[in-house]
Amino acid sequence: MNNIAITVAYDGTLFNGWQSQKNGTAIQDIISAAIYSLTGAKPFPRLEGCGRTDAGVHALNYVANFKSETTIPADRLPYALKKFIPSQISVFKAEYASEYFNARFSCIKKEYIYKMYSSTVPNPFLLNRAYFVPVQLDIDSMREAAGRIIGEHDFSCFRASGSAVKSSTRNIYTCDVSVTDGIINITVSSNGFLYNMVRIIAGTLYYVGIGKMTADDVESAIMSKDRNSAGITLPPHGLYLNRVWYPEGSFLRTEVI
Amino acid sequence: MNNIAITVAYDGTLFNGWQSQKNGTAIQDIISAAIYSLTGAKPFPRLEGCGRTDAGVHALNYVANFKSETTIPADRLPYALKKFIPSQISVFKAEYASEYFNARFSCIKKEYIYKMYSSTVPNPFLLNRAYFVPVQLDIDSMREAAGRIIGEHDFSCFRASGSAVKSSTRNIYTCDVSVTDGIINITVSSNGFLYNMVRIIAGTLYYVGIGKMTADDVESAIMSKDRNSAGITLPPHGLYLNRVWYPEGSFLRTEVI
Repeated sequence: MNNIAITVAYDGTLFNGWQSQKNGTAIQDIISAAIYSLTGAKPFPRLEGCGRTDAGVHALNYVANFKSETTIPADRLPYALKKFIPSQISVFKAEYASEYFNARFSCIKKEYIYKMYSSTVPNPFLLNRAYFVPVQLDIDSMREAAGRIIGEHDFSCFRASGSAVKSSTRNIYTCDVSVTDGIINITVSSNGFLYNMVRIIAGTLYYVGIGKMTADDVESAIMSKDRNSAGITLPPHGLYLNRVWYPEGSFLRTEVI
Repeated sequence: MNNIAITVAYDGTLFNGWQSQKNGTAIQDIISAAIYSLTGAKPFPRLEGCGRTDAGVHALNYVANFKSETTIPADRLPYALKKFIPSQISVFKAEYASEYFNARFSCIKKEYIYKMYSSTVPNPFLLNRAYFVPVQLDIDSMREAAGRIIGEHDFSCFRASGSAVKSSTRNIYTCDVSVTDGIINITVSSNGFLYNMVRIIAGTLYYVGIGKMTADDVESAIMSKDRNSAGITLPPHGLYLNRVWYPEGSFLRTEVI
């Protein structure tokens, strides 16, 4: 029995997020079914993903794992799975992981990117891919405010209200604002994220960008632990899970095919 | 009566090309209907586009013009039209043109880009946006062959067979191969294009990239005037109308809103 880790990219527009749904339109369901169709594995493969992504959220390097007795070598799996998976999802890498590797519980760090752009009218090529802002944004102020978010804090202010009561303390390692080809990328990495956290951070920095909040306001919002003191929750279509990190030795063979 | 020139970007995936269709799903029909809905102009506005684009072909800076008595200032038109136009199409600029300006007949030069990429499996974010090539391409050879296409020639070899018999002589001003973020861009500018010309040029350079043709073969293909001596016609979804040029003085006011 091999423990196989796959790396996946998906355009989340058409799917009900990662997490398995009764109607089978979640990305987890689609890939599980593809693995089953390919390998005929019984029982139905249990695919463990590195985390939930909401409907409409995209992923560039999502990691999941499953145990399998398939004799298809890992580096052939992406080719072999391709015909069972819709074009909006791509399993582009597969590798053998250590016996105890679990894409969710072994994960030590994650990075998300929220994309937005300023323009007079929306850009058709960014439809469902980045948040459209009809006014100019003050990037320098956004960058300053982003810097204030870094560190270990109780981030209750960036947690969707009504989410389960657990610790809201997280360590934000990086929070950067960069501009590439006219797209503003808010890149946030952490040891863990609260529900809707990146979309609320992006909405808070958006408020800074339009002059509705200052960097000091953002610092105060964190201190207040009050969701109402932060900015709005931006829509899912600007959000990308970019990368996840695992301890050294998690993967036995890392050939990229 | 003002002569108004609009600049348009569109993701062509969902539409039947630019040119008006009986079923009204052409981009020309959609924008004409939007202008009519906004201005109530009678007769129905005649929108002249800079050229045809096939179903699935995209445009970054497509120019069209129409005559109108609307009192809405040109620089407000993009905002005003937005709510009548689907998100896959964006009229992002409008300006007053000289009385005799005609987006089609005044055009002196056009530039298209054909996008393709090499990868082991397709990239979901390039679905319908760039041609997927499952093998590595020899970019240097493609670039050398592209250089041989430049100049004034009878380009019968790059003309879809069965197209109307007229002169096939065109002047290719530039034909470049560049790579940006892993995407190979074949950029071709000319005083005019034959039907399917850029898709056949792209298919010919693709043949060079996979080693099926050499730069010398491309030169021979042009000399032969035989469509069968060139490469395949690549699909429309990799093709973008990038830019069109008009004589100086075509536009009276060029403010970009």
